[in-house]
Amino acid sequence: MIITKPTLLVNEKIARANIHRMVQKAKNAGVQFRPHMKTHQSSIVGEWYKEEGVSKITVSSVDMAIYFADHGFEDITIAFPYNLLEASQIEALAKRVMLNVLIESPESLEHMATHVRAKLNYFIKVDIGTHRTGISPDNPKLIHSLARSTNPDHQLIGLLGHAGHSYQANDKKGAQKIFKESQKAFKKVIAELGRTDLIVSYGDTPTCSLLDEFPGVNEIRPGNFVFYDLMQYGFGSCDFNDIAVCMACPVVAIHKDRKEVIVYGGAVHFSKDLINVGGKRNYGLVVKLNDSGWESLDSSYMSKLSQEHGTISATKDLLASVKVGDVLGVIPVHSCLTADVNGYFYTLDGQHIRMRDKK
Amino acid sequence: MIITKPTLLVNEKIARANIHRMVQKAKNAGVQFRPHMKTHQSSIVGEWYKEEGVSKITVSSVDMAIYFADHGFEDITIAFPYNLLEASQIEALAKRVMLNVLIESPESLEHMATHVRAKLNYFIKVDIGTHRTGISPDNPKLIHSLARSTNPDHQLIGLLGHAGHSYQANDKKGAQKIFKESQKAFKKVIAELGRTDLIVSYGDTPTCSLLDEFPGVNEIRPGNFVFYDLMQYGFGSCDFNDIAVCMACPVVAIHKDRKEVIVYGGAVHFSKDLINVGGKRNYGLVVKLNDSGWESLDSSYMSKLSQEHGTISATKDLLASVKVGDVLGVIPVHSCLTADVNGYFYTLDGQHIRMRDKK
Repeated sequence: MIITKPTLLVNEKIARANIHRMVQKAKNAGVQFRPHMKTHQSSIVGEWYKEEGVSKITVSSVDMAIYFADHGFEDITIAFPYNLLEASQIEALAKRVMLNVLIESPESLEHMATHVRAKLNYFIKVDIGTHRTGISPDNPKLIHSLARSTNPDHQLIGLLGHAGHSYQANDKKGAQKIFKESQKAFKKVIAELGRTDLIVSYGDTPTCSLLDEFPGVNEIRPGNFVFYDLMQYGFGSCDFNDIAVCMACPVVAIHKDRKEVIVYGGAVHFSKDLINVGGKRNYGLVVKLNDSGWESLDSSYMSKLSQEHGTISATKDLLASVKVGDVLGVIPVHSCLTADVNGYFYTLDGQHIRMRDKK
Repeated sequence: MIITKPTLLVNEKIARANIHRMVQKAKNAGVQFRPHMKTHQSSIVGEWYKEEGVSKITVSSVDMAIYFADHGFEDITIAFPYNLLEASQIEALAKRVMLNVLIESPESLEHMATHVRAKLNYFIKVDIGTHRTGISPDNPKLIHSLARSTNPDHQLIGLLGHAGHSYQANDKKGAQKIFKESQKAFKKVIAELGRTDLIVSYGDTPTCSLLDEFPGVNEIRPGNFVFYDLMQYGFGSCDFNDIAVCMACPVVAIHKDRKEVIVYGGAVHFSKDLINVGGKRNYGLVVKLNDSGWESLDSSYMSKLSQEHGTISATKDLLASVKVGDVLGVIPVHSCLTADVNGYFYTLDGQHIRMRDKK
């Protein structure tokens, strides 16, 4: 494959190994594995999952659900609050596949009851500590108001929580603490409803990567783990060699006086998520591309991003060897957003993988 | 038009007025107007420019240049350092249109001389204070090495600078200061080369919006001004009523206890550029959608963004009236990146405008 412009590379072998490992982990822990597809948004990576026996998936939008339904997935959870304005799309989809949606208000439940004339299941979204969406486990009135739909075709099948705050966990101990708090929240809602048949669905890559047992949980929904990234590596969710994505960036200018290398590769290729390393903004770590993918280089990193330009703070060694026209690898900070802004990626053997089209 | 999901709206009337105003300003100032197309990346907005008599444009990548050449533009400056790896694409394009590229190293100039067998013009990229790309005006040896190509088809026609640091100018006085420093840098290079025939090309929306005269400059290249955004409004580059873009976002959850409204509209719709308002992260300002577009509401703003969710810090008034299923408007922080992540937008009368496809 000839690189001429910023190109997101995916090491298929690593991505498949990440999938295999998580499938095995779920089996060993006795939980259902329902991976989130938002990271790759691609039917081809969907096939990699199918080959590992995965048939139930999670998505984050109705559009994404339609895309994967069009590509042979027949059991889909939309892990995003029911959007009243998409009732007709949800109805059409629920007639084609086994659809699960999230409910967190009586208004949404009642709207769905009257506007979605199809069989579907719903989860109550529980706030397990992220404080983004979901009901509080300390609100019995609200909990009971969501337990039953006026539409007999709409069945409550479980509770769903997303531990977004696990992104601050940083290690196994931190992940365990967050997981235990989540367990408490789920248990409270279950006790309130007096129903032991409910599925407890739990997500996020840090916890699912750092822990091996998920007592009290029936289903896990990590997504990012298929690619991982610099942020997850920072959390300890993965080894450096588990990261399956790298952006190949042509070098277009070198400024030795400022110890900077300018690459073609900017915010429209990386997105603008960043991590803070030693008090410095870091948009990606520079690696060396080689015949089998990439390897660690040194501490050179992406320090600034404008629309198409990336500024690399370069070590003395990199400055001594780099030339305009070289191609540097950069491990992105957040692979979900990086993949999304690109809309496509390449496997190392040159397969072009187009992602779900936005329209 | 029925909004069911996050939808980037463009007020065509405002955008056309922004274009008209800048065309007039350039005429009055006696400078060539060569607008940057990176903000909208769309042939339809390109037509709006053509209707105002614009035929020369600026782009930030070879791909973008090819797109606009395919849509009838025949004089294009790629305001990005010459990328050696795209020499053959540049050659093919230079055979179709009047192409201008940027050079800042002898290696690039020589590579182009031997690899691009077509007539084209080049600008020396001068660092006028942004310290991203461009040569220092204090490096006479480098300046002279870029003055002449070994390929007689490659003509130096000018100096080009981008005052990216004008994004810190904040007012007319600040913009004037930055403009004067730029003038000095350009003059130094011109004096060194002893050539008074060189075009001096100057860009960026804040300076071109805040100033009316551009002495010593022959060409201006603003881009963002066609849409403007919250960041530019913060700089004083525009009035609030000059902002031509707004994201329509369905309300999917309300958390009165936290004074938060959750909308469908996240990082994949807004990008993650933010501004700091009163020490708080701000990803967009909430407005009220109405029949003719949108109007100011209050101080409710987007305080957090995840992949698909946006969290709005809501005022008491907004909380008192908002319902799930409502659609709120949000003025984005940085319209260039917001448009880019969406890939399309709608005019208020419902015209779907697809942007340049990434592939």
